[in-house]
Amino acid sequence: MQADERFMRLALSLARRGLGNTWPNPAVGCVLVKDGVIVGRGWTQPGGRPHAERHALAQAGEAAHGATAYVTLEPCSHYGHTPPCSLGLIEAGVARVVSAQTDPDPRVAGRGHAMLREAGITVTEGTLEAEARALQAGFLSRIEHGRPWLALKLATSFDGRIALSNGQSQWITSAQARAHVHALRAEFDAVMVGGETARADDPLLTVRNFTPIRQPVRVVAASRLDLPRARLAGSVSDAPLWLVHGPDAPAEARAYWHGQGADLTQVPLGAGGLDPKALMAALGAAGLTRVFCEGGGRFAAALMQAGLVDELIGFTAGKVLGGDGRAALGPMGLEALDQAPHYQLVSQREIGGDVLHRWRRT
Amino acid sequence: MQADERFMRLALSLARRGLGNTWPNPAVGCVLVKDGVIVGRGWTQPGGRPHAERHALAQAGEAAHGATAYVTLEPCSHYGHTPPCSLGLIEAGVARVVSAQTDPDPRVAGRGHAMLREAGITVTEGTLEAEARALQAGFLSRIEHGRPWLALKLATSFDGRIALSNGQSQWITSAQARAHVHALRAEFDAVMVGGETARADDPLLTVRNFTPIRQPVRVVAASRLDLPRARLAGSVSDAPLWLVHGPDAPAEARAYWHGQGADLTQVPLGAGGLDPKALMAALGAAGLTRVFCEGGGRFAAALMQAGLVDELIGFTAGKVLGGDGRAALGPMGLEALDQAPHYQLVSQREIGGDVLHRWRRT
Repeated sequence: MQADERFMRLALSLARRGLGNTWPNPAVGCVLVKDGVIVGRGWTQPGGRPHAERHALAQAGEAAHGATAYVTLEPCSHYGHTPPCSLGLIEAGVARVVSAQTDPDPRVAGRGHAMLREAGITVTEGTLEAEARALQAGFLSRIEHGRPWLALKLATSFDGRIALSNGQSQWITSAQARAHVHALRAEFDAVMVGGETARADDPLLTVRNFTPIRQPVRVVAASRLDLPRARLAGSVSDAPLWLVHGPDAPAEARAYWHGQGADLTQVPLGAGGLDPKALMAALGAAGLTRVFCEGGGRFAAALMQAGLVDELIGFTAGKVLGGDGRAALGPMGLEALDQAPHYQLVSQREIGGDVLHRWRRT
Repeated sequence: MQADERFMRLALSLARRGLGNTWPNPAVGCVLVKDGVIVGRGWTQPGGRPHAERHALAQAGEAAHGATAYVTLEPCSHYGHTPPCSLGLIEAGVARVVSAQTDPDPRVAGRGHAMLREAGITVTEGTLEAEARALQAGFLSRIEHGRPWLALKLATSFDGRIALSNGQSQWITSAQARAHVHALRAEFDAVMVGGETARADDPLLTVRNFTPIRQPVRVVAASRLDLPRARLAGSVSDAPLWLVHGPDAPAEARAYWHGQGADLTQVPLGAGGLDPKALMAALGAAGLTRVFCEGGGRFAAALMQAGLVDELIGFTAGKVLGGDGRAALGPMGLEALDQAPHYQLVSQREIGGDVLHRWRRT
């Protein structure tokens, strides 16, 4: 079914527009096709609704009658804020539904497809399923593992350093590469750093240089909440600030950040700071599906050691800093190479004179 | 002159065949074209002779009469082991010569072009000069700077590590990437490591997995000549072994290696071992034009600090080793980012699941 794949590919490209903007809902795409002509295109709208199917049906109007709907995820079957999308497709008179994957959400889990079939609609499942799973990896991770998809970004010199020994790091990568980081942030639900990086860099963590549809949540994991206050607190109105702390965070610090409008979540301590699994579970429970971690080295190493990093995003610049420069990751205590976390290359390209390489966990 | 560039590009691709095989001579390519038909193709033969022009003229025979010769370097004008190539082109009755660059060798330096013009041959200079200079960078470096072109290879994990803290390093990169390293070695006149790497890895440093036209010279820079003996000494018949040592090398070690057929060169000591500039000058004086350095970290950092590294060749694998893994380079003592050596991206591609990226000094 070459035509089915073609239209599903379009639906996937529409779904991609929602990445970072739809949590806790998945970013879904929908294309309505009648007699070979596209009569409606939709994608999950910012905040998660309307769903992609509703968005496409509204565009198609009467033309949806007798059309084929291509959806990147099984249409929902449960009544939430709005009636289910399966019902919407039935009511619009859609003749056929082609879906990329079953929704693993226990409230759906095949019921959407069944509802459509009961209404006499032809349903084809699994078209470009692998591509759809890759695109909706964040949503799937939250449902299947109870935690968001986690990408770790490292921007390093040719020899893998993120700063000189004196801490100087501005700039190793090119202006274009740094601008691209802002575009990447916008595709994630949240941008996360550890307390060490927050203290060292006092970063804003917002998307800048262009206006995103939705500013990602800023997550700072700092056991004792000892963070620089001016910039982070002053920017809570620009982007949500979630602080994840341990039981050892002083009451004064909790009260201060609470008063500034930050959202506070307590998780237990682990071996070298906050327990990384509890941290990620808390972020999943709060609705996040895609998290973009930008360091620091120790925090990233803890996430890596706990097997929580799903994707690596590397920027490699043509500068050489030497072995006394700062390492990108903290120690991991590996004793054999077969213990090393292993990732598969997804893509590599030049950006502003640097190399951008992306990898996924094998 | 689109046709000129097209034939010069072919001549450059022929020249490339000689890389690693022609030192101390340059790797030159030559194409003879008559009435739009290629009547001769030549490249500098292993060991440096016959020269490319002689090789192409022999193929063309009588057809060279009235032809245009495309040569990637000015034809030589001096009598050496054989009469000069300019004379060969004149005697063959070539009508026109298109050359990419003037030979900076003081024995030539324009005299080749002049000799051709005096014989009534039309000469066009500078066609694809930048490309030709890049290809013949090794030869040019030796003439212009008195030292070989130096490429530094680093094969690292995603986070820039070359081994675990316990030294385990087999293997970080893929089998295909490692096979490619052997192909790269074959394009260089010499493969070089420092004594630390020779002691730690006891490497053979030969080209394996395929039969090169000429095994690169193996250069080991070891101030005191304290090297593992079995494999290195046992393989002198397979590939030349040049040991560069300091004045502090014990007489016993000198005698041993000399007895094994190694070539010994003494250079002065510098701040942290052998003086890197003296080392590279000695290699240039011995005729090497292209050297491929494979570590170790301290030796590479010393070469880098001395401004001697012209090219970086990186292999980045999808493994993560952590900050306790071994750094690819030794300390460089930089105090500001603008002191960091800076390289420009030449190419990047996937190889066996790893990223291969090449850079040149800006």
